[in-house]
Amino acid sequence: MSKIHSLTIMVLSDSVGGTASNVVHAALSQFPNVEYELKNFPFIREQSQLQTVLEKAKKFNAVILHTFVDTMFVDMIESFCFEQDITCIDVINPLIKEVTAQTNTMPQHKPGANHMLDDKYFDRISALEFAVKYDDGKDPKGFLEADIVVLGISRTSKTPLSIYMANQGYKVANLPLMPESSLPDELWQVDEKRIVGLTNEEEMLSNIRRERMISYGMNPETPYSSMERIRREIQFAEDLYNKLNCKIINVSSKSIEETSAIIIDSLNNH
Amino acid sequence: MSKIHSLTIMVLSDSVGGTASNVVHAALSQFPNVEYELKNFPFIREQSQLQTVLEKAKKFNAVILHTFVDTMFVDMIESFCFEQDITCIDVINPLIKEVTAQTNTMPQHKPGANHMLDDKYFDRISALEFAVKYDDGKDPKGFLEADIVVLGISRTSKTPLSIYMANQGYKVANLPLMPESSLPDELWQVDEKRIVGLTNEEEMLSNIRRERMISYGMNPETPYSSMERIRREIQFAEDLYNKLNCKIINVSSKSIEETSAIIIDSLNNH
Repeated sequence: MSKIHSLTIMVLSDSVGGTASNVVHAALSQFPNVEYELKNFPFIREQSQLQTVLEKAKKFNAVILHTFVDTMFVDMIESFCFEQDITCIDVINPLIKEVTAQTNTMPQHKPGANHMLDDKYFDRISALEFAVKYDDGKDPKGFLEADIVVLGISRTSKTPLSIYMANQGYKVANLPLMPESSLPDELWQVDEKRIVGLTNEEEMLSNIRRERMISYGMNPETPYSSMERIRREIQFAEDLYNKLNCKIINVSSKSIEETSAIIIDSLNNH
Repeated sequence: MSKIHSLTIMVLSDSVGGTASNVVHAALSQFPNVEYELKNFPFIREQSQLQTVLEKAKKFNAVILHTFVDTMFVDMIESFCFEQDITCIDVINPLIKEVTAQTNTMPQHKPGANHMLDDKYFDRISALEFAVKYDDGKDPKGFLEADIVVLGISRTSKTPLSIYMANQGYKVANLPLMPESSLPDELWQVDEKRIVGLTNEEEMLSNIRRERMISYGMNPETPYSSMERIRREIQFAEDLYNKLNCKIINVSSKSIEETSAIIIDSLNNH
């Protein structure tokens, strides 16, 4: 287990290369002992560009993932890789072929179609702006417009979660909870199904807050990081969640992606 | 071309299902005339759960995409789909198998490993918090800490771009440009390679701003949306970009993903 294997993975795309990069991150997370370099080659729109990149793949003995929608480019990669004995994985064409077959519809073969500036795109952009505008309880009027209202005490990842969900098109507002601060009236006007209360383990919060103090160059033993204080905050939050009858998520061992998937799953099943 | 074909696509995952969902969006963007429903089934960790979901796939005659890391689940899906004549596409195992072969290392078969709360995760969370904190020129001290400083006049997608790049781990601060406002001193201390100036077409800005006024219930013909005003703003911004000698990107027909890929590509090639 001590030896670290190393690998070069190249993502080739006629657009951003995001889809294939995600596949690389997901697959390689299963190999904590393998060191890999992910080289992204976006916006390849000319055969000469592709040829240059393929030569690089040969030089690095790389594994190739690609997401070309022009079949000429796909053929060019496949024959090069076959000749040079390089592995190439086609990330989107298996599904494109299946959809073609099932619907008897031809794909448009349009590079960058995944990033079209359509209504859905602009809704997502608005949602991102919304999340920033209504972050941190800045304006409780946002609660009435939001798809989801996230509540939580300090250091429960309210902001990153709100933004992550905004990037998926949801309008999210969040409110930090403190036993001392009064709650905005708007909160009681929100449908409980749209409210999510975040909580965390005492121990975890204490560690996070102590580290935060240290990063500020302060003594970690502040009232902010004391167990008694944290217990009081958690209790206050959980009492409120019960009063609101909202969904409660303990984020202690969850990433924002996981918390987000739980929230969306619960919204869809209501 | 008038007939709309419809299709159900199911994403099955032991984790969030984000990787496969991205593949679905990318592939289906090639079929503007195909209406599809994407049903996401995240966090499948029991065989009985999987069995229930597979029965649903049969009922909907769905195409399945999956990202299971436990081979028993993969086998279960594949034999079910073979028997029932359902198409299933394995999104991450082709690459997992290739990495196993090339590095002679076994994958850990750990669901959710892609969402480990490791240093990289917390760096990304910090970057998201950074982007919100230093959005809209709120505190120019952020420029000195940022990996990338984004400049732009109103409605050039500074905020969504900053957040999108933060989600990839970059610390991004942004500053809105207005001919009237003075520039913070910190701007001149930033390495020009880390500054990006956004610009846009006059026509496009005028339309966006007029629509913004209409959405506010105001007369669209304001100084804010007048061509003369917009021309002056663009000129002011471009003069500044030339003075700073920074990279300039015209975002008029680019999504934030595309703009982001251009910025990262240019950073990597410096």
